Amino acid sequence: MRNSKVVTLEEAIRRSGLKDGMTISFHHHFRGGDKVVNLVVDKLAQMGFKDLKLAASSLSDVHKPLIEHIKNGVITGISTSGLRGELADAISHGLLKEPVVFRSHGGRGSAIVGGELKIDVAFLGASASDELGNACGVPRSENAKSICGSLGYALPDARYAKHVVVITDDLVAYPNLPAGIRGADVESVVVVDSVGDSSKISAGAIRDSKNPRDILLAKQAAKVVINSGYFQDGFSIQTGTGGASLAVVKYIREEMLSRGIKASFALGGITAHIVKLHEEGLIGRLIDVQSFDKVAAESIAKDPSHVEVSSVEYASGEHLGSATHALDIVILSALEVDTQFNVNVLVGSDGIIRGAIGGHQDTAADSALSIIVCPLLRGRIPCVVPKVTTLITPGKSVDVVVTEYGVAVNPARPEITEKLRAAGLKLVDIKDLAAKATSIIGTPDPLPFGDKVVGVVMNRDGSVLDKIYNIK
Amino acid sequence: MRNSKVVTLEEAIRRSGLKDGMTISFHHHFRGGDKVVNLVVDKLAQMGFKDLKLAASSLSDVHKPLIEHIKNGVITGISTSGLRGELADAISHGLLKEPVVFRSHGGRGSAIVGGELKIDVAFLGASASDELGNACGVPRSENAKSICGSLGYALPDARYAKHVVVITDDLVAYPNLPAGIRGADVESVVVVDSVGDSSKISAGAIRDSKNPRDILLAKQAAKVVINSGYFQDGFSIQTGTGGASLAVVKYIREEMLSRGIKASFALGGITAHIVKLHEEGLIGRLIDVQSFDKVAAESIAKDPSHVEVSSVEYASGEHLGSATHALDIVILSALEVDTQFNVNVLVGSDGIIRGAIGGHQDTAADSALSIIVCPLLRGRIPCVVPKVTTLITPGKSVDVVVTEYGVAVNPARPEITEKLRAAGLKLVDIKDLAAKATSIIGTPDPLPFGDKVVGVVMNRDGSVLDKIYNIK
Repeated sequence: MRNSKVVTLEEAIRRSGLKDGMTISFHHHFRGGDKVVNLVVDKLAQMGFKDLKLAASSLSDVHKPLIEHIKNGVITGISTSGLRGELADAISHGLLKEPVVFRSHGGRGSAIVGGELKIDVAFLGASASDELGNACGVPRSENAKSICGSLGYALPDARYAKHVVVITDDLVAYPNLPAGIRGADVESVVVVDSVGDSSKISAGAIRDSKNPRDILLAKQAAKVVINSGYFQDGFSIQTGTGGASLAVVKYIREEMLSRGIKASFALGGITAHIVKLHEEGLIGRLIDVQSFDKVAAESIAKDPSHVEVSSVEYASGEHLGSATHALDIVILSALEVDTQFNVNVLVGSDGIIRGAIGGHQDTAADSALSIIVCPLLRGRIPCVVPKVTTLITPGKSVDVVVTEYGVAVNPARPEITEKLRAAGLKLVDIKDLAAKATSIIGTPDPLPFGDKVVGVVMNRDGSVLDKIYNIK
Repeated sequence: MRNSKVVTLEEAIRRSGLKDGMTISFHHHFRGGDKVVNLVVDKLAQMGFKDLKLAASSLSDVHKPLIEHIKNGVITGISTSGLRGELADAISHGLLKEPVVFRSHGGRGSAIVGGELKIDVAFLGASASDELGNACGVPRSENAKSICGSLGYALPDARYAKHVVVITDDLVAYPNLPAGIRGADVESVVVVDSVGDSSKISAGAIRDSKNPRDILLAKQAAKVVINSGYFQDGFSIQTGTGGASLAVVKYIREEMLSRGIKASFALGGITAHIVKLHEEGLIGRLIDVQSFDKVAAESIAKDPSHVEVSSVEYASGEHLGSATHALDIVILSALEVDTQFNVNVLVGSDGIIRGAIGGHQDTAADSALSIIVCPLLRGRIPCVVPKVTTLITPGKSVDVVVTEYGVAVNPARPEITEKLRAAGLKLVDIKDLAAKATSIIGTPDPLPFGDKVVGVVMNRDGSVLDKIYNIK
């Protein structure tokens, strides 16, 4: 190959012109199995870089080694959709000098396009790349070592970063096309042993639920969908990753079959459940910004109607081409919902960061009908509360909250109330739900927050929604 | 659909902020059947715009109405890959005040990416679009009225133009995905009766030849390919659109079958001949910047290994991801070749513009082996000449010239000479070919050029290669 771009990681970093103080970016398509962030940041530390800003699409438990890099001054700023595990715990306690900037997936896309988030060097893991940098998240040779499916969160980085390094564990013959990351956008290609452990892409938030309460919640949510007025031939839907919101799909499927209704598309993180409906002909197209499990990743590898889209195309508020603008129904989970229908999916009731904004803000805002599925209590923790610990999705974007104690409809949507009442659903006032939670477990003690801002929650339009303070 | 972008053409133009003096762009995927350029420029004239610069990927006979728009001052500048017919004739005689800027397809891509060609408003015809602007060149509904296949030349415009208007004759339900033009890049969608006559996409330069001389040339060219040293398992190839260079494919196919050799990819304008080899399993992938006939357009609609690429990805010299950098063999035609191996594909021997640079410069420069197939004479017109009328592709990019009087190898490639001689091909000195042409038809009279520059030929790197003067 003439003009091969393949170099070592060290050489790619040198060529990139990276300097102290600059911003590096990563995607999280391997979720808990990601190996690229740690690999690259270890190398940058070894090469003596300091004061780097890390712009990840999200971070999780596996990125615990960043704690040391923060302590050593290699990483001094983070922007991400979420944080989990020991890294999140340390940051919640004030590890990082600058607050973490939390953005939704669509918000991150908009910030990259609009230039508020400027990426100097993107390090993008891929399951296959050719020597010119055409790269994808699906296997393309017998030697493939990984699969993550859609590279949707990496696509804005590939297009807008000043310098792009593809990191792959399978260098394949040109042309590795079709491919979401195109060689014209890539400066260097680095070959490593492993970019990620694919067995962990469905770890973390995603699981099938056998929990009877989840099943009850799912059945109720399905009833809301079916009777909402939006459940019509050609409808579109996105489901989240909570156990209950996944189980909803099963009940919706039964109703689609019995009524002979088909969906035009399913959006978002795509799961095996959704792939199944698509393959049965019940859903026309799968619009996939992130493949949430191996079945979804394998589907996008082979099915042209299962389409990879960027986070901008998925959910950017600034870009009217985004799919959320065509979305009818979204089913989402929550850590907390309050009596104003505000939702928190980021900070635990202990004040520790333990989640991610994801597409929550984006889909709730743009969809015609947003449904939050959330138990009233998780153990001794109330989930319907007078006021959320941290504001992530404003209540004006939230239409319906489904709990095991009844369904609360946002008063701003009286026509939904009407339809659900007519269908015989048990409707409750959200204030009564919060009161019920309080009556069961009492009013929790106030959280011991300090006065250091450890996180800033951005709204998808680039404004500040809330601040997260350190926990003592 | 919330946030539909569908408006009338007039409204789309108003919203675009277009002003006198600005640059508008178009693609030529419908070739002689294009209806978008005339439709839009008529409307712009009617709305009173003046002094617009027209940046087309190419122009042809069908754009004759531009003559009036130039006379009326609506269009005062043109950049294009080529010109044909009455428009070309009028421009050759000095119709336009500013010289036309001729760029190769890869050169246009580079100029758009690099900012030398700034597009204010792109008007991009598409065979299907949804209301958010996801648009493609293939049918997506039963109501489809047109097909042109790859939209490769439109993709840089879609990405880099300040404002993008998609013009379609089939508005389909969201999501029209996969799609080369993505809604995130599109501001307006305009629905019209017809964007193009698809029966004409293979008109013009492309035809099957039954001409015995073409067949002889094709056989010789195939022998060059087969004995060049590049004809090995995994090779890659691009063929041009001349009758002979198309016929080469037939002979190469036979040899591939007999030797059990397969190509990794075919590049460029894709034809039915190439699709056939792909479908037989003889070519791995089709990398398609332009579908040269309906068979190719239908193939890209259904076959995931037949991939749409932008002109930047196809042939940009500035972008190392471009496919030409991985291209082994290209077979090209010529109006004239001179004794320095320089090639002219743009200006006739009468001094009138009648062709297009296309990917000629790009593929000749980047490929490992470039072969020009060209008769010694066309009627009374010599094709191998002492000096080309207009320099389009510099001789240093040209390796072999195949004529019916023998094969000339560029002295810069002695190893090719060696291989072809060993294979028993009749090798000749290119000076002897030019002398032979002169001996048959004499030395033509010098062309009656004036002193007005009517065209500037750019090299793909953005430098000026040659100037075209008005013909009297």
